Amino acid sequence: MTKCFYCENEAAVYRRYSGEYLCKNCFIRSIERKVKRTINKYNMLTETDRIAVGVSGGKDSLTLLKILTVIERKFPETEIIAVTIDEGIKNYREEALDFARKTASRLGVEHVVYSFKELFGFTLDEMVMELKELNTDIASPCSYCGVLRRTALNIAARKVKATKLAVAHNLDDESQTALMNFIRADFMRLLRTGPVLNFLHENFVTKIKPLTEIPEKEVVLYAYFRGLPLHSQSCPYAPEAMRNDIRNFLNEMEAKRPEVKYNILKITDRIRSQISKTQVEVGVDTCIECGEPTTQNICKTCRFLKLIRDKKKFNSQNV
Amino acid sequence: MTKCFYCENEAAVYRRYSGEYLCKNCFIRSIERKVKRTINKYNMLTETDRIAVGVSGGKDSLTLLKILTVIERKFPETEIIAVTIDEGIKNYREEALDFARKTASRLGVEHVVYSFKELFGFTLDEMVMELKELNTDIASPCSYCGVLRRTALNIAARKVKATKLAVAHNLDDESQTALMNFIRADFMRLLRTGPVLNFLHENFVTKIKPLTEIPEKEVVLYAYFRGLPLHSQSCPYAPEAMRNDIRNFLNEMEAKRPEVKYNILKITDRIRSQISKTQVEVGVDTCIECGEPTTQNICKTCRFLKLIRDKKKFNSQNV
Repeated sequence: MTKCFYCENEAAVYRRYSGEYLCKNCFIRSIERKVKRTINKYNMLTETDRIAVGVSGGKDSLTLLKILTVIERKFPETEIIAVTIDEGIKNYREEALDFARKTASRLGVEHVVYSFKELFGFTLDEMVMELKELNTDIASPCSYCGVLRRTALNIAARKVKATKLAVAHNLDDESQTALMNFIRADFMRLLRTGPVLNFLHENFVTKIKPLTEIPEKEVVLYAYFRGLPLHSQSCPYAPEAMRNDIRNFLNEMEAKRPEVKYNILKITDRIRSQISKTQVEVGVDTCIECGEPTTQNICKTCRFLKLIRDKKKFNSQNV
Repeated sequence: MTKCFYCENEAAVYRRYSGEYLCKNCFIRSIERKVKRTINKYNMLTETDRIAVGVSGGKDSLTLLKILTVIERKFPETEIIAVTIDEGIKNYREEALDFARKTASRLGVEHVVYSFKELFGFTLDEMVMELKELNTDIASPCSYCGVLRRTALNIAARKVKATKLAVAHNLDDESQTALMNFIRADFMRLLRTGPVLNFLHENFVTKIKPLTEIPEKEVVLYAYFRGLPLHSQSCPYAPEAMRNDIRNFLNEMEAKRPEVKYNILKITDRIRSQISKTQVEVGVDTCIECGEPTTQNICKTCRFLKLIRDKKKFNSQNV
């Protein structure tokens, strides 16, 4: 039996990048401590924040919700409210929605749901149907679903009067995104991602990512040890091809160099810190259609919704 | 028969990232034009430069030497001198040295050779022998050979009174290096690479990389079409493991997204241009042992040579 580094119990986890053996309880505590450290390091929260937590119902968001409620116990003035965006994906969203509802209720957290249908007029399934024949880049459901979800979460956070919006991106997500932006030479997006996003725009709710430093594998283990429900279904729409390639590459690299994902966070943090804040802010404007923050005249969400409406009109005229 | 895009001849090359079909001659001209454009874009050369060209004898350096002599014809005041560093690698260097000598002579270019032995006191083979039992990171021959070669080329360029040192790094090399520095979170090295390296240090000869925008495959084709000799042997020392992984990843990515290597150059150029020059220069100092530019008190080369000498003493005392 291999013992835990920190107590007398049997180890349940080996953490390769640090060489630690941990029992279930010490592992849980180590994850919660690490999230607390990330929150402090990046000044993510104040004691009086009203935090909207984006909860899809997947392992990452349930973990985030659980950890924030644990941390919150010491801060009675902090408020947490779980926010779920229902994209409208048949045979997929229902289970996750149920998990989100039950977990929030078990944790004693208020829970609200906003749907693409009520916010934008279409479910994701309906959008996919309308765009089916469009053989363009925009026809990849993941790309526009991501854009719409981001807008939806920002609107939802405002609706519930949150001062912060916490999302559950983990170390794997963040390092993949950074490397993807690097490889796509998307400089502004490389700058505009990161553990805290805070644009000077009255309609933008500061976004924080408390799981930024937790590897995906450890999120899974945490959720399992904490008895959080694990999603059995995966999204029926194909994932972004490039992200898949990057994920595989990073996982292969990590097998040989355990620090690689942390390195990517570190260097993008470094690059970001060297660029003046004003420069990143340049171009953060207000969408003339919906008033949401955008870097263009009309935001991506409005441009996409216009495309959908045009396509729908075209489709119905040609039936 | 597929015709060349630019003349009546049969196409010999298909350039995927641009969609062009090219005959042998138009391909050769397109490469030379592209190198000229790179030189102009980055202000690499003036009309009165004395250019030391680092010529290992491999396809890249022979291609660079050939192209620079072609370009030079229009600039009678420019001088070119081929410089070879003989690391001292048995059953490998001889052939390349011979290619370097013959190609320089055929092109009517002066050729000088400096060896690790005369510059540093040891051949690479001797260093590898001395370090054989040292089971540390520094024991990878590629890593220290690279450091020593860089110093040797800079010394050689000064010895031949060159105003510029041209090296043959191609698009693949440069994109691999940039991605490697990114993944290692080596911010300063990410900034200190690039098509032109020009530190404000009296002993530093400005380094230029005219092949920065030419993919490795096209260098091979150019060398083949121009009848340049192609090296049959590969270096007996194992290549850097990480670079191999990065090379494979980038080649796989390129198969799906032909622009990926150019993207990496683009974003590192962009990052570099955003950081103030002074900041990059901070820490460029003079080695107290040898006077070469360094970012530390004692340069990497001197520290490495001290290690070798200590090891040799230790080895001979323990025989």
